[in-house]
Order: sequence, then C-alpha cells, then structure tokens
Amino acid sequence: MIILGIDPGSIRTGWGVVRREGPAFRYVAAGTIATGKDEELPQRLHAIYEALQAVIAEHVPTAIAVEDIFYAKFAGAALKLGHARGVALLVGAQAGVPISAYPPALVKRSIAGRGQADKAQVARVVGAILGLRELPEVDATDALAIAITHAQAARMQGLTQVAAHPRPVRMRKRAY
Amino acid sequence: MIILGIDPGSIRTGWGVVRREGPAFRYVAAGTIATGKDEELPQRLHAIYEALQAVIAEHVPTAIAVEDIFYAKFAGAALKLGHARGVALLVGAQAGVPISAYPPALVKRSIAGRGQADKAQVARVVGAILGLRELPEVDATDALAIAITHAQAARMQGLTQVAAHPRPVRMRKRAY
Repeated sequence: MIILGIDPGSIRTGWGVVRREGPAFRYVAAGTIATGKDEELPQRLHAIYEALQAVIAEHVPTAIAVEDIFYAKFAGAALKLGHARGVALLVGAQAGVPISAYPPALVKRSIAGRGQADKAQVARVVGAILGLRELPEVDATDALAIAITHAQAARMQGLTQVAAHPRPVRMRKRAY
Repeated sequence: MIILGIDPGSIRTGWGVVRREGPAFRYVAAGTIATGKDEELPQRLHAIYEALQAVIAEHVPTAIAVEDIFYAKFAGAALKLGHARGVALLVGAQAGVPISAYPPALVKRSIAGRGQADKAQVARVVGAILGLRELPEVDATDALAIAITHAQAARMQGLTQVAAHPRPVRMRKRAY
C-alpha cells in the first residue's frame, strides 16, 4: 500500500509518499510544489497539475489522501485553497486512484493523539513514526501526516472488517 | 475575437461562446456541463475538465472570461466553487488562452446598465444583444453574459488605447 498525501495550496502544495509494510510505515519521498507568487493563478494551477502528475507517475500510489477542508473560516481563503485542491482531486481522478479526505482534527488526533495538537507536535511525531533524522519542509510534513492518517484509517477498517485487503476509505460523501 | 465565458460550479458549469464582429456580437454556442450529484467530487471535476477541453477544441476561443468570485460570502460554498473554478482556469492555461476575470457587479453593469440588476434582467439583455429567440439554460446564459462583458471591456480598452488589436484584459492580479 503506497499512499500519497497532498496538502494543496495555490502558492505551496506539499506532498508526501508513505509505504505501509504491515504495521510499519516507511518514508518514500516528500516535497513541496512552490509556484511563483508573481505568476497568475491559471499558470500556478497548471504547475501544480504537472508536478502532481509527475509525482503519481514516479511513485504510483494506490491511494491518495487530502485534508477535508470544508471547514475553512474565510471565504476568500477557502476559494483560493479550493482552486488548488480541485486540481489535486482532478489529477487523482485522472490517474484512477481512490481519494480519501480527513478533517484536520482527525489528522492531528491520528498522529499526535489529540485534535488540538499544534503543528510542531504533529511534525515531531511524523518524524518519529517514519524514523526521519530531518523533517522535510512544513507543507511536505503536513502531507506525510495526512498519508499516515489514511494508512492508519485503512488499517483500522481492515481490522474491524477482518479483511485481507482493506478497502480504501473513500472520500466522505457527506462533505460534498 | 472568439470569447468563451465560463460560469463554473461543481454541479453545473455553464459555458457560452460569443464572436465579436466589429461592434456586434454573434452567438456561437452555449451549454451546461451537468455532473451527477451522486458522483464524487474528483469524478465531477474530471467531467468538467474533459467537457471544457472539448469546448475549447471545437470553438478555439481567443479569450476566456470568468467571474471574479473572490467575494463569495460563505466559506463552504466558496471552497466547492473554487474546485470547479480551478479546473476551468487550468484548462484555459493548458490551452494557452488568456483568462480574464470580472466581478459579478461589473458583469451586471456591463450588460444591464446597473450592478444591482437581477438575473432575469441580465438574461433578457443577453438575449436581445445576441438576437436569441430562446435563451439557453440559466448557467449557460450567465456564461454568455460574462463573454459579452469581456468583449465590451476589451473593446473599451482598445478604444482608449487607440490600438488596432486591443490586448486582452488580463486576470486582475489583485484578486490573487
């Protein structure tokens, strides 16, 4: 099971690939797609599209996980975020990879044990789980946290279903 | 000058193509991309992507115009709208067509003479400008209104610049 976590943003989109081997997680790769602030939004979205396609072609994930961010507070920020997130979902759909979404609080609880954990705590635990000496850039680390959350959710579902190959948790219909 | 107006939405995306011939506008085509409400968002975005690509391939627009909707009031609605809008901007960027954005009030003022005009008034004027006996579906009519707005803005810019070939009004940087 190879999971690609994506933390989309129109200026910086983080991504992280994690492999689940039984109960353990292995770090595969992570990075940040940084688009020029001076570039116009359509060109930035195109850069995100191409970079995510390249990541999927290289690492061939069996699942994609993103944050479920339908709880954004500000309409302007939500709209901009939505543009980049839409492109991420599109790339996943085009690659035929199932996409799951997890609320931010669930990601924090899944990684650091509580929904109110701060970013630094989450990052430390991500580093410990994956045995990283050095953490990647903050958006990439967030993406790794989302990927691990999906792996844990899929494992839990597998355990409760007593299934040999747990089905991926599909994107929650409620959110759309 | 062939202008494609797009009114993006995750459930219904309207599009309309208008040709400017001197001071006159000619209706070329319009339609609505309706995606299944039961489909998941990634699949809906993929359907919008493919349909808009087909529209661009068929009508080869020289400019694309969308609403500048960074003024959406509700974060949840803005985020969903942003997904579809992001895909529309991506398709435009991939086709190498310049994209312009106009605030909703400017579209209303440009078409119906005042920024507070209601949808029915705007639709009537769109029908009169294009000489349509019957209006297309509401989202497609909105898209035609945006396309006409762009044509008028480009013409105005051409007149004030006294340029033979008015530059398209680029997407306003401020919005991003």
